[in-house]
Parts: sequence; C-alpha cells; structure tokens
Amino acid sequence: MNNVQIDPSRLLSDLRSLADIGRVGTGVRRTAYSPHDLNAREWLSERMSAAGLEVTIDNVGNVIGRTSRASRALLIGSHTDTVPTGGWLDGSLGVIYGLEVARVLLEAHALEEIGIDVVSFADEEGTFSGWFGSRTFCGDMDAVDLTQIYDQDGKSTLAEVLTPLAGRARQRLDRTRYIGYIEAHIEQGPRLEGLGKPIGVVTSIVGIRNHKVGFSGAADHAGTTPMTMRKDAGQRLFRFVTRLVARFAEMASPETVWNIGNVIMQPGAQNVVPARAEFLLQYRDPTSERLKTLDKILEEEVARANEIEPDTCSFTTSMVTEPVSMHPDIQQVIRKAAEAEGAAYEMMASGAGHDAAAMAKHLPTGMIFVPSIGGRSHTFEEDTTEGDIIAGAKVMLRSAEMLVGAARTKVVAD
Amino acid sequence: MNNVQIDPSRLLSDLRSLADIGRVGTGVRRTAYSPHDLNAREWLSERMSAAGLEVTIDNVGNVIGRTSRASRALLIGSHTDTVPTGGWLDGSLGVIYGLEVARVLLEAHALEEIGIDVVSFADEEGTFSGWFGSRTFCGDMDAVDLTQIYDQDGKSTLAEVLTPLAGRARQRLDRTRYIGYIEAHIEQGPRLEGLGKPIGVVTSIVGIRNHKVGFSGAADHAGTTPMTMRKDAGQRLFRFVTRLVARFAEMASPETVWNIGNVIMQPGAQNVVPARAEFLLQYRDPTSERLKTLDKILEEEVARANEIEPDTCSFTTSMVTEPVSMHPDIQQVIRKAAEAEGAAYEMMASGAGHDAAAMAKHLPTGMIFVPSIGGRSHTFEEDTTEGDIIAGAKVMLRSAEMLVGAARTKVVAD
Repeated sequence: MNNVQIDPSRLLSDLRSLADIGRVGTGVRRTAYSPHDLNAREWLSERMSAAGLEVTIDNVGNVIGRTSRASRALLIGSHTDTVPTGGWLDGSLGVIYGLEVARVLLEAHALEEIGIDVVSFADEEGTFSGWFGSRTFCGDMDAVDLTQIYDQDGKSTLAEVLTPLAGRARQRLDRTRYIGYIEAHIEQGPRLEGLGKPIGVVTSIVGIRNHKVGFSGAADHAGTTPMTMRKDAGQRLFRFVTRLVARFAEMASPETVWNIGNVIMQPGAQNVVPARAEFLLQYRDPTSERLKTLDKILEEEVARANEIEPDTCSFTTSMVTEPVSMHPDIQQVIRKAAEAEGAAYEMMASGAGHDAAAMAKHLPTGMIFVPSIGGRSHTFEEDTTEGDIIAGAKVMLRSAEMLVGAARTKVVAD
Repeated sequence: MNNVQIDPSRLLSDLRSLADIGRVGTGVRRTAYSPHDLNAREWLSERMSAAGLEVTIDNVGNVIGRTSRASRALLIGSHTDTVPTGGWLDGSLGVIYGLEVARVLLEAHALEEIGIDVVSFADEEGTFSGWFGSRTFCGDMDAVDLTQIYDQDGKSTLAEVLTPLAGRARQRLDRTRYIGYIEAHIEQGPRLEGLGKPIGVVTSIVGIRNHKVGFSGAADHAGTTPMTMRKDAGQRLFRFVTRLVARFAEMASPETVWNIGNVIMQPGAQNVVPARAEFLLQYRDPTSERLKTLDKILEEEVARANEIEPDTCSFTTSMVTEPVSMHPDIQQVIRKAAEAEGAAYEMMASGAGHDAAAMAKHLPTGMIFVPSIGGRSHTFEEDTTEGDIIAGAKVMLRSAEMLVGAARTKVVAD
C-alpha cells in the first residue's frame, strides 16, 4: 500500500482552480453563502464525483463525498469558505488533501470495507456563525433559531441565505460509519516556519473567550469643561486596559495569547469628551484552568472599576469555547506518518479554532499543520511553499492509510 | 438713550423660530450648507430686512445686515450653522442678539452716523473648515484651494457646495467702516452656572492644537501568533497614551485641557492584531507658552516611541490656533454694561473657539457669555434659562450703546 503516492501537480492544480473562484489578486473573497462560495461547492462536488465519490450538498451547504461501497470510513476535510480578505489555502488545503487522498486510494483500489469520505463544511469562518457547518453536521446547532443569526453586516440571517438549499436533506454525523476525522490546515502562525519544520502535529485546540468591555461617561465639550469636572469614558478605558494587560502578562504561559482588536469611542469627535468607550477583548489558552484565571482577572478588574466609579463599567461575552484535545492515537499516527515521509514535525497546540474542535467532541480527531509563510493568514498574502504543501499531503496520505489499515484490521479482528 | 430696552418676547420668539429650522426634538441639525442651513440664512435675511437693515448673502453664505445710512458701524453677530447634534442657542443666540439690538436702536432712531451691522458667519462649526465664514470675511482664506477642503464624511468639497452661491459678490471686512466686533455666545461649559452668575466677560480665547497620532504594526492572527512575536499597533497606542497623559497632567494649569476624542484601529477585528492604531488628540490653553510646552511633550514622546520601535509612530497636525486676547477696552465696556444692568459677571477665558478669534486679529473684539445649563453644548439637551438669555441681551444692548456712543463722540471730536 505504501506504493500509493499523491500526484503533486494534480493537487496543486486543484488548489489553484479552487482559488480562481472568488480570486482577488493573490487572495480570495469567498465568504459563506456568497455566489462564489456556492460556486466553489458546485466545483468541488464535480471534482469529487470525477474521483469516484458519491456527493451530497446538504441543506446547510456542507459538501460530502462518500466512498459508496464502504460501510465505514475515515472523514477528511475542512472548509472552502473564506474571510472577506482570505488566502488561497485557509480551509481549501484540507479539503483538497482529502480529495487527493481519496482519489489516489480509490485509483489504487485500496478502499474497500473502510473508505475515505471527504467534507467541506459550511461557514467555518463565521460570516454568520463560526464552525456552523461542522456543528450542524454534529447536531450541535439543532436548538438554534437560524432566523436570529445575522451576518457580520447585520443585513441578512442564516435562515434567509439557506432558503435556496431548503429542498435538500440534512446530512448528519453517522457514528456507526466514521472511524475518525482528520483535518489538515495551514498553521496561520509563525512557529513552524521559524523552526524550519514542514509538519505540525496538533495536540489540542485552544479555548477562546470573546468579550466586549464598555465604559460610560458624559459627552462634555473638550474645550470648556475643566479636566476635574469630566466623566471621560475613554480615559476610563485606557486606565482599565493598562491594569488588565499587566495582570494578564503576570499569569500568562508562553501559549497564552490575548488581543485588544478594536476600540470604539462615541461620539468620536476630536473636541468632545467620549461618553462611551468599548474595546473588543479576546484571549486563548490550551488549558481550561488558565482560561478561568483570566476570566477571574477580567471580572475582578470590572468590579474594581465600578467600586471606584459606580456603574461605569460592564462587559458582555460573545464567545466561550473550551480547549479540545486531539485524540492521542491519531496524534501518534500522524507522528509515524511524518517519520515515514522523513518530514520533521513539531507537537503544538493550535491557537486558531477549526472544524476539528467541533468534530473532536464526537469522533476521534486529529490535525496536521503545514507552515504559513511569515505566519500570515486571513490576508491576501497568505501562502505556503509548494514543497510544504506537498509534504503535508504525503503525511495526510500515510496517516489515512494507517488509520484505514488499523480499522480494517480491527474489522477483520471483530 | 438708556430708555431703549430689548423686547424679551420678540427676542425669544425669533430664537424659537430659528430653532424650528432643522429642529430635531429639543435640538437642531443645521450643518453648514445643508438645506436647513441655507433656509435659516434666508429666514434671517428676511428678519433683518424687516428690522430695516440692508441685507447681503455673499458667495460663501455669510449673511450681513447693514445700517445703510451709517458710514461706520459696530459689528455684532455669530453663526447660525450647527454641529450634527446641535443645540438651539450655539451661534443663534449671538446672531439674534445682534438682530434685536439693531432693531431696537433703529426703532429708537438711535443709529445715525454710527450704525449696528449684524452678521451670521458661515460654517463656524467646521463641517468643512472651522470659522470658514469669518476667516473668509477677514481675507484669511484667500490663498486656500476650496476644491481640497472636504466635509467630515469626505463626500463633497467646499468648492462644490458653494457653486449655487457663485453668482454673488464676496463681502469683505471694511476696516474703515467697523469700530469693533462683539459676539455673545453660550459658555458651553459649567463655570458660570456653578458660580450662579449670568454673564461671562471673555478675557481671551484659548489656543487649540488638533493632532492625529498614529502607530503601525502587523495584522497577525490573534490566536496563532505568540505574544512575543507580535507587532501590535494597539498596544503601542495604549503605552503611548499612558505616558503622554501623565506628562500633560504634570505640566497643566487649571485652565489647560486635553482630550482623546477617538481611537481607530484597523482592521478592527476581535481576532486580528491591530496593524494600525490612531487617536485624535486635542489640547487647549489660554497661553502660547504652555501650548508650546505641550507641543514639545508630544514631539518628545513620538521621538521616544520611534527610538524604542523605529518608524512605528508619527503624527499629523490638523489645527493650530494661538490664544487670542479680547480687546481690553471692550472687556471694560462689557463689565460696565453688566454693572449697569445689575448682572453679576465673571472674567473668564473661553475654552471654545469662536468667530471672535478670527475677528480679533483685525478688529477690536469682545465676547459676552451666558450660562449653559449643566455645561452642555453640541447636544440636543443644550439650553440656557430664559432669564439668562434676556440678561445677556440687555448687557449686549448696553455694551453696543456705549461702543456706538464712544465712537460717535470720537467722530465728532475728529
């Protein structure tokens, strides 16, 4: 079975064809449920069919290509939607790896009772709701009212954009079919490049907290109101951030990260004291314990601000995810596959969220990273060398072979 | 001549009629060159004509009503444009005081060789360019290219909005005509209300600096980029602001004010490290010396930031005005007028800029303040008690009588 090889030129050709759908210069704009996103799903469906997979696009846009003759399967995939200023590999890489791995194994007649199924999940990037397709596939969105989930511009709801797909059946995770889920992805950070290693074996996916922290004040004239008489929401924000960041730094591990990605002040004029000031806060950590410590620091600082100036500070939480471990057996398989291919690898946590985090709650799940040039992602400049793209595909193929082989042995043994 | 009195109900009625043009609830939206602003200028023109003044609306929208038979005149006025969320008195008060003072003195046949001219200057609030009308009247804008001055939304230029007025003649300050300029205005701050005094005699108008201070960084993924590898423009801004504000506080007098009215971060997403961060900085002081000290602190801190992290920090300056003293003789006249009316007064610097600052470079100039309830202005809640409005008009009338009387005596003496 080790004689089976991926076809590098076919792999790269498919990646480039997919990148042409929604291309903007060197990047891609293919946000979930946009015409380009739907065209990409149709294109993918045709490529899967040509490879011999049995394809379904379901009523949330998930594209699944199945090895029809297999009763059990390894699921490989990722997503083909992008952020508004997306790169050509974020998501697409993992989907096309799945396509190529299924294709070469089907061509080699290596898939019989255990197949490879390939998936592109919808709206991973959260144009409407992050990991929407994978969470829906797992049944984790069944209680959610899709008429209340808006896009980032607040213009349309998920329910509205799903209307054209309404006639299709919902595809659901079949636990009796799947032996596991494996996803390759660009690292989206600078660590592998810095280490000079082509492969990351993901140990866990960090937990994330998203908060908006707000301060109130009064919109006084910035020329005529003496400094001592002001209620300056902006200065309240600056003092708060200074303390919070210092306390976070004290508690951080090298894998802890936090970000203040935006500040909004109102009315926002040069000559008006800010009446309202808000900042977007995010922090991530691979451990639940440290996330809880950071949660507590935030709560303490908000309480302290309100002790000094009552009712001036509050926060709302828009996202809470807990860290997710990758299955140890699949980590081990990926390590062995990298060793078999002679590819240097690094064991590492994923600082970004992925469909794998949703899947890991339901299936043995693993992830393979390849380096990002300059650590860049979510930008038109996002890129990975062809050598690293091919190395990652080879490690995926060997991993799939081992997982399928192990499951076959187990079936036989049963 | 002291038997002449203002008509309080006519004065209030005119103020309320003017407030109806562009009314929004208790406030007014009458930004420069909007249809409401132009309608207000037509309305004012009719009221001036009805009072017996000879009216001109010139090619920048300045409305001037002249005592036609007089060869010399005292100029009284302010502006009738507003900020987008303006109050009913900011600007309008000084214009309607001028109208009422001219009206009662014309009715009393008290204006002969020395008249009262009344003016409403265009775009005092800087929808396009602050004090545009008064600076144009004084000839201080002659070298400026109006095709390069945009409104705050960046949508249209001054040259474009002035096109409908292009057939009109430019009105210019005639130094042989005017004996001085006097402007009444709401204080826009809380001091007079706090002191319980209805009149402020303005001693000087503060100098103002407007800067935008910017920081550059790199838009890295906020989950996958270790803290030590980030180039976070937002954190650069926070560190800078903390130091700047501390140094400003060390150097400030009780009359020094500064404001950070807005912060803008790009791309501004929760999960992206800010690549660019900017803040709007303004500071004001009644002395040139202290303004220069604050300028120097800003320059030193920018230099320091660039020493630590080269080429990451810069600033642009959008406004530099120097403090302007009100003419001592007119200050003295207003004090005497307040005493004659039995109105308590306070000598005070104006923390806000006014057309009087532009006029004071060319004519003996004075200003009268009336209290602002709660110190509020540039908001729909802006207000002044009727009693204070009437007190201010009385002091304006007595001041005008004294200034006209003194000039008449001087003419006779010449």
